[in-house]
Amino acid sequence: MLHSYNCPNGRAMDGYADRLLNAIADKGTPCIVGLDPRIDQMPLFTKNSGSSSSTYEETVHDSIMAYHRCVVDAVADMIPAIKIQSAFFEQYGIGGMRAFYDTIHYAKKKGLMVIADAKRGDIGSTAQAYANAFLSGETNGEPDKRALADCLTISPYLGKDSIDPFIKTCMKYGTGVSILVKTTNPGSADVQNLTLSDGKKVHEHVAEMVNSYSSENPGANGYSSIGAVVGATFPEEARKLRKMMPHAIFLVPGYGHQGGSAKNAALCFNNDGLGAVVSASRSITYDFKSLDIAEEKCVSEIRLKTEAMISDINAAIKR
Amino acid sequence: MLHSYNCPNGRAMDGYADRLLNAIADKGTPCIVGLDPRIDQMPLFTKNSGSSSSTYEETVHDSIMAYHRCVVDAVADMIPAIKIQSAFFEQYGIGGMRAFYDTIHYAKKKGLMVIADAKRGDIGSTAQAYANAFLSGETNGEPDKRALADCLTISPYLGKDSIDPFIKTCMKYGTGVSILVKTTNPGSADVQNLTLSDGKKVHEHVAEMVNSYSSENPGANGYSSIGAVVGATFPEEARKLRKMMPHAIFLVPGYGHQGGSAKNAALCFNNDGLGAVVSASRSITYDFKSLDIAEEKCVSEIRLKTEAMISDINAAIKR
Repeated sequence: MLHSYNCPNGRAMDGYADRLLNAIADKGTPCIVGLDPRIDQMPLFTKNSGSSSSTYEETVHDSIMAYHRCVVDAVADMIPAIKIQSAFFEQYGIGGMRAFYDTIHYAKKKGLMVIADAKRGDIGSTAQAYANAFLSGETNGEPDKRALADCLTISPYLGKDSIDPFIKTCMKYGTGVSILVKTTNPGSADVQNLTLSDGKKVHEHVAEMVNSYSSENPGANGYSSIGAVVGATFPEEARKLRKMMPHAIFLVPGYGHQGGSAKNAALCFNNDGLGAVVSASRSITYDFKSLDIAEEKCVSEIRLKTEAMISDINAAIKR
Repeated sequence: MLHSYNCPNGRAMDGYADRLLNAIADKGTPCIVGLDPRIDQMPLFTKNSGSSSSTYEETVHDSIMAYHRCVVDAVADMIPAIKIQSAFFEQYGIGGMRAFYDTIHYAKKKGLMVIADAKRGDIGSTAQAYANAFLSGETNGEPDKRALADCLTISPYLGKDSIDPFIKTCMKYGTGVSILVKTTNPGSADVQNLTLSDGKKVHEHVAEMVNSYSSENPGANGYSSIGAVVGATFPEEARKLRKMMPHAIFLVPGYGHQGGSAKNAALCFNNDGLGAVVSASRSITYDFKSLDIAEEKCVSEIRLKTEAMISDINAAIKR
C-alpha cells in the first residue's frame, strides 16, 4: 500500500487522511470553519473593499475575498482546515467562482487544508471531469487556475461507477472525498432513511459502500482518504454509522446554527478521539450583517467564536 | 394555477414545460444535443482560435466558444434545446466557467432553450443558492453575469426540503428542474435499484416524489416544469417510470454513445408522443478530434449527425 503521492510539482506528499490527521494533531482540534459567502451577511468593510472596484465581477470577488482573507487570517493558527460551500460562490457568477479559487489558494498559503463542499456526482466520464476540476491539480497544466482542494464532498446516488473516478484521482494525487451518507437536514429522511428489504436503511447501505472503499484504501494512520459526510443532528444514526465505517474520516456539519450539539458531534469520533472533523459555518461567520466594525475587531470576534467552538467540541470528545 | 411568470425584465412568460413543448412542436422533434466540452475532442480550427489569445483562461474560453458557436449555429434551426454538462466546463477553471455562461447566452440568442446538467443538490439554504445561481436570473441584479438556464438537473438524495427551494424558484421564474430518478450508467443499480421493504425500488420511490411535485405543478399543456432524468439504457424501468410520472417531462440521456437505442428512448414518451426530450452528446460532437476540417464542413457534419438522430428518434416515437 502506497502512503505517499506525487503532488503536481513532483514532491512526494502524504495522502489526504494523513495530512489531515497531522494538521488536527498540530492544531489540537478537529474543528473546522465553513465559508458560505453571502455578501449581505458580511461586515461593512468588506463591501467597501468591493465597491471601489469597477465591474460587478470584481466587486463581488473583492468583497468576498476581503472577508475570506479576514476569516482565514483569524483562524489559520487555530484549526486544521476550512470548508468552502460551492453553491454560495456559484450564485455570484464568475466573480464568485474566482473567489472560490482564490479562497482555496489563500487558505492553503496560510497553512490551512481546504474541503470543497460541492456535492458533485455524475456518470463515470463526467465524474472524472469533476475529479479533474477539484482533486487533480493537473487540469491542463495551469496550476494557478485550478480549484485544487484537499477534499471534495460527493453524492452516492449514481452508484459505484460514479464514485470510482474520484477514488482513483484521490489515490493518485493524495487528495480525498467525503461521500454523503446521512445529511443534517430533516428531509434527509425522505430517501436516506428508507428501509430496504433486508432491514437496513438506504444510508446504512451507502455506509457499507463507503466502508469497503475506506477499508481498501487506508492511510499510514489507519484512516482513509475516502470518508463520509455524517451530520451532527442525528445522534442515533451517528453512533451506528461510526461503528459501520471505522476507517472513514467523518465530515460532520450541523454543529451550531443547524442545532447539532457538541455531544452529538462527539458521537462521530472513534474511541481514539479521532476520525472526524466538525464544521461550523453560519454560527461563526454570519453575525456581521452590514456591521460597521473594524477588521481587527472582526478578526478578534471570529477568534472568540472559534475558540468557544473548539472548547465545546474538544471537551465533548472522549479520548 | 398560474401559467405565466415574470421574467427578469418584467415581461410575462410561459413556464419551462410550456416553452419546451412549444419549441418541440416548432422544431418537430424532441431531440436535443449535449455539449460536454473536451478541447482534445474538438476540431483544429477551434484550437487555433484559442491559441491566438494571451492567457490560459482566454485560450480555454475562446477554444470552447469557437466550437460551441459552431455547434449551436449548426443545430439552432433543427432542435428545441441544448444540454450543457457543467463538469466539463468546470474542469477548465474560470475560462471554462466563463464559456459555460457564454454558451448559455449564445444558445438562447440563437433561439435554443438550455438545460444545465449539473446535478446539484444540498440542504435548503444551500439549495436556494444553487437555484439562485442557475434558475432565477436575479442574482444581484446583474443579468449578464448569471447562468440563467431554462432547466437544471438536481439530485434527490437529500430529500424534499432540498428540492423545495428549486421548485419555488422555478415556479417564480418560469424555469424547470429534472430530478435524477434512474441514470444511464450500470452503477445506477447500486443505490437506485435497491429494493425497499414495501417491494418498491429506491428510484421508484423517488419517481413517486417527482410525480407528486409534477402533479401539483402542471403547465398549461398538462406537463410540469418539474421533471425527471430517466436514462435510455434501461427499457423496463423506462416503461414503468413513464406510467408512474405521467405529467413529468423526462430528460433522456444515454442515446447513442452510451448504447441507448431509439426504441428504448421512445419508451420514455407518453402515447401523445410527448413527455420527453432525448439527448445525445458524444455521438454528435466528439468525432472531430484535432481534425483539420473547415468550420463549414464541421457544421454540415454536425447537421448530418443531428438529422440522423432526429429521423431515428422521431420514427420510433408512437403518435
